[in-house]
Amino acid sequence: MKGIGASPGIAISKAYVLKHQNIEISTKEIQDIQSEVSRLKEAIKVSSIQIGEIKEKAIKELGEEEAKIFDAHLMILDDPEYTGQIEQIINNDKIAADNATNQVTEQFVAIFGSMDDEYMKERAADISDVGSRLIRNILGVKSQNLSEINEDVIIIAKDLTPSDTAQMNKERVQGFATDIGGRTSHTAIMARSLEIPAVLGLKDITSKAQEGDIIILDGLTGEVIVNPDKTTLKQYEDKKNEYENFRKELEELKDLHAETKDGHLVELVGNIGTPNDIEGVHRNGGQGVGLYRTEFLYMDSHEMPSEEKQYDAYKKVVEGMENMPIIIRTLDIGGDKKLPYLQLDDELNPFLGLRAIRLCFAEKDLFKTQLRAILRASAHGKALIMFPMISNIEEVRQAKVILEECKSELDTEQIAYDKEIKVGIMVEIPSAAVCADIIAKEVDFFSIGTNDLCQYTLAVDRMNENVSYLYQPFNPAILRLVKNVIDASHAHKGKFTGMCGEMAGEPLAALILLGLGLDEFSMSASSIPQIKKIIRSVTLKEAQEIAKKALDLATADEVKQMVQLELNKLNIEIV
Amino acid sequence: MKGIGASPGIAISKAYVLKHQNIEISTKEIQDIQSEVSRLKEAIKVSSIQIGEIKEKAIKELGEEEAKIFDAHLMILDDPEYTGQIEQIINNDKIAADNATNQVTEQFVAIFGSMDDEYMKERAADISDVGSRLIRNILGVKSQNLSEINEDVIIIAKDLTPSDTAQMNKERVQGFATDIGGRTSHTAIMARSLEIPAVLGLKDITSKAQEGDIIILDGLTGEVIVNPDKTTLKQYEDKKNEYENFRKELEELKDLHAETKDGHLVELVGNIGTPNDIEGVHRNGGQGVGLYRTEFLYMDSHEMPSEEKQYDAYKKVVEGMENMPIIIRTLDIGGDKKLPYLQLDDELNPFLGLRAIRLCFAEKDLFKTQLRAILRASAHGKALIMFPMISNIEEVRQAKVILEECKSELDTEQIAYDKEIKVGIMVEIPSAAVCADIIAKEVDFFSIGTNDLCQYTLAVDRMNENVSYLYQPFNPAILRLVKNVIDASHAHKGKFTGMCGEMAGEPLAALILLGLGLDEFSMSASSIPQIKKIIRSVTLKEAQEIAKKALDLATADEVKQMVQLELNKLNIEIV
Repeated sequence: MKGIGASPGIAISKAYVLKHQNIEISTKEIQDIQSEVSRLKEAIKVSSIQIGEIKEKAIKELGEEEAKIFDAHLMILDDPEYTGQIEQIINNDKIAADNATNQVTEQFVAIFGSMDDEYMKERAADISDVGSRLIRNILGVKSQNLSEINEDVIIIAKDLTPSDTAQMNKERVQGFATDIGGRTSHTAIMARSLEIPAVLGLKDITSKAQEGDIIILDGLTGEVIVNPDKTTLKQYEDKKNEYENFRKELEELKDLHAETKDGHLVELVGNIGTPNDIEGVHRNGGQGVGLYRTEFLYMDSHEMPSEEKQYDAYKKVVEGMENMPIIIRTLDIGGDKKLPYLQLDDELNPFLGLRAIRLCFAEKDLFKTQLRAILRASAHGKALIMFPMISNIEEVRQAKVILEECKSELDTEQIAYDKEIKVGIMVEIPSAAVCADIIAKEVDFFSIGTNDLCQYTLAVDRMNENVSYLYQPFNPAILRLVKNVIDASHAHKGKFTGMCGEMAGEPLAALILLGLGLDEFSMSASSIPQIKKIIRSVTLKEAQEIAKKALDLATADEVKQMVQLELNKLNIEIV
Repeated sequence: MKGIGASPGIAISKAYVLKHQNIEISTKEIQDIQSEVSRLKEAIKVSSIQIGEIKEKAIKELGEEEAKIFDAHLMILDDPEYTGQIEQIINNDKIAADNATNQVTEQFVAIFGSMDDEYMKERAADISDVGSRLIRNILGVKSQNLSEINEDVIIIAKDLTPSDTAQMNKERVQGFATDIGGRTSHTAIMARSLEIPAVLGLKDITSKAQEGDIIILDGLTGEVIVNPDKTTLKQYEDKKNEYENFRKELEELKDLHAETKDGHLVELVGNIGTPNDIEGVHRNGGQGVGLYRTEFLYMDSHEMPSEEKQYDAYKKVVEGMENMPIIIRTLDIGGDKKLPYLQLDDELNPFLGLRAIRLCFAEKDLFKTQLRAILRASAHGKALIMFPMISNIEEVRQAKVILEECKSELDTEQIAYDKEIKVGIMVEIPSAAVCADIIAKEVDFFSIGTNDLCQYTLAVDRMNENVSYLYQPFNPAILRLVKNVIDASHAHKGKFTGMCGEMAGEPLAALILLGLGLDEFSMSASSIPQIKKIIRSVTLKEAQEIAKKALDLATADEVKQMVQLELNKLNIEIV
């Protein structure tokens, strides 16, 4: 069977099939309203205790940030809009507590799920999780207790809820295989964060695999095999060993420099979304943070986060990185990413609309609050400020004027900040890449955001499956623009160019980027070891020759083939 | 008063106030249903005769293409969905014919008007026009007859319908001033096509101006003055003379070459949408067509236009241009421009989605039908083929393979076409501009579409008023990309670069583009004389120096200021 490889690695183990029991909802009219309301209230109490316990376990095993989702679950249980409405329809419609809970939950899930917004869709999943728990508790149905797993298993399920992943015994779970879900689903994110191999979106694995079947799961290719024959089993056992040796080899690189054979040093750093992600950067030997996405702070909140709240978060990151550089990107919101407490127009083409720095100029108070919080955090370590979505030099100047305003205010208020704080921009709009030489005079550094740069340069929305085939990071136009940006920064002493798009963590791109002179590679922390290994396998001169060859080619496919050939010649293995 | 200058020129004349009488709709319940149905049927007959007459007049005075709108009006009168429904509610609701017509018309207008589609919005205006006529005829109310105007007047109206503009005496109408409408409204398009000065969107001109008032109307600045004092009148009479002399001077250039003082020749050609637009190109001394937008052929139709129908239209243009070059752009539809008979997904970012050549690859039959029609038309004159929305060289190759298929088919069928037909691409996606040297090997010419190129390069939807300030055709990034494309084409003997975006007809841009080496400027025909005058006022060397200066500047504003200064130094007046 073939699904979506959502977390790398190979697992071979027995199947543990997670069945959410078929629960029968009572549809009869009821007589005793009071007793149904009592059943509901009792179930709310029990659910609240259960979620509290899961939360404690999650804090210990996953960290505070990951556990926050259970605060959201408790808030749902406590929300009169939700439980109040359940009680109301028990009263009005004379239906059983489980039936009422089911109806209201489905209604809420439908509303949130239909919103074209990742944040709201996640809320739908949370409500669904809480609703099932409530119904089970009303009916007194016990669910499988994943914390009691006491042998090595691969979990087979339709989907995994946050409650499932938080409860399960991580020592014993070797892999996940699910019917639904993709690379950005909750299950995928958890699997990668726990470093458990996972294949999702298998459609009907729950009906193909039985409890106790032997399962091979290849998170690299997305393959799942149920009850393999001996030859296949042997083959995958070898592959598993090979992969584990490869990972071990990478782990040994942790404390070594990202340095070519001839001593050229680059920086390998992590992209993070929350203070909690710092741990992964340290664990993988990252030398700093090349992109701290501050959006989550805004999206996980129901009101504009205050200066204090932001300061606390930024300070935590800055202190947690122990004087290593942290590039904090100012708010990149708008367009498709919306905030519930900020009224924004619907736009015909949100990617070409009011977002990021454009929105910050339009909402100056919001912008200043964030800049003040970043400046204050800069007193505690090495923070850098980065402005997203810059299209011309006037915007850089405008942003710097506002930053100076904030500095003056802090001076007046005698509040400490790093007076030498460096300021840079994301290069993600083609005009900024083309005019990097002009803009270089106004900034300390560039960071190339390849995801958006590709989208605009190739005029492709990569989330649009009708045209995503045209999204080509290896297109010669992208490589030329990257070179132009790097060269422009190097023409000024002390200025540097980083990259924080997905390309920076892409093994096939590493040698080209190294050869073009990229100074800093920022990526998901888990990609750092592999990129470090590649960089340590060549001389700068070899990389420069590969980059030169790439620039002479006509198509993205030709570039990728050439690099693969060179990697083979150099005997560099990539996964 | 200040409105939107929608058609240039200055008019000074008496006001002719077009009042669509306040018609009172009868809301009483009726007894004699049969007599109401008869009134409706009689009014349909009369309306049909009236529209037929207007159509004849329109064909004579405006040409067949412009007159087609009245075929649409006749179709509405004949449509059982529309008139059948009116009859039905007379019967069911027992209401008067005028009331029923009013209700059904409003309902249709609301439905079509709410669609996010220019084509459908226009249909709403047509239904409204037909509905008012029907109601007037039911009630026996005569409307003002604009064909009887027998003195020089400026027409003051809330808005002008196609019926109004078709009927009016063009000899006597000196200008339009309306309450509503913008630069792309029907009234604006008609005014420019008839070369009548117009100011639209004045909000309340109909209540400020009385029949017989003296009106000054400045279509250049959007100013309208009612009953001016003597000094103002004198001032505008002078300005009017000055403008007319300027226009006359431009007209005298009609048969002269677009040639610099030192003999460097460029081509000035027109953008057209329908065969009917050819006349304007000839009248303004255009040397060909740099962009024939074939979309209208598809959008004005309720089914896929057949090969024959397309062939007829293309042949008309090719023959009409008398062996001058016509660049026919293949279908650029999708995204925001939709076809009623082609099912397309809604897209989150239509500008980055399935449109133009991408759609043609997905709908190969549609594409081949058009290519065959263009090839067949090429036997009758000098046609060139241009592919829009090219982002990489593979797409050029793919399009050429399909073109070769069509040629082979025609060879087999022994149908004539130009075997030497030239093939080029629109350069409107940044990657194509950056990689013009790579793509140049596969094409005969480039035509730079600056509107889209600016949108993608600067990541700005210019129709989005929140960010349209960032839409900067004079941004250094755009100028550099334009230079890159021109240089790439000139590196190959016999290849050329044109431009068919609005920038090509922008007086401030002319000298920069000339200096960068642009070979062909394609624009609205009415802009040709002015651009020709500017080109004839300098030497190529002077233009090259201006272009060089422009490339050294940091912002769009600096570029525009510099060019204005240079134009002043050279004593070149622009309007």
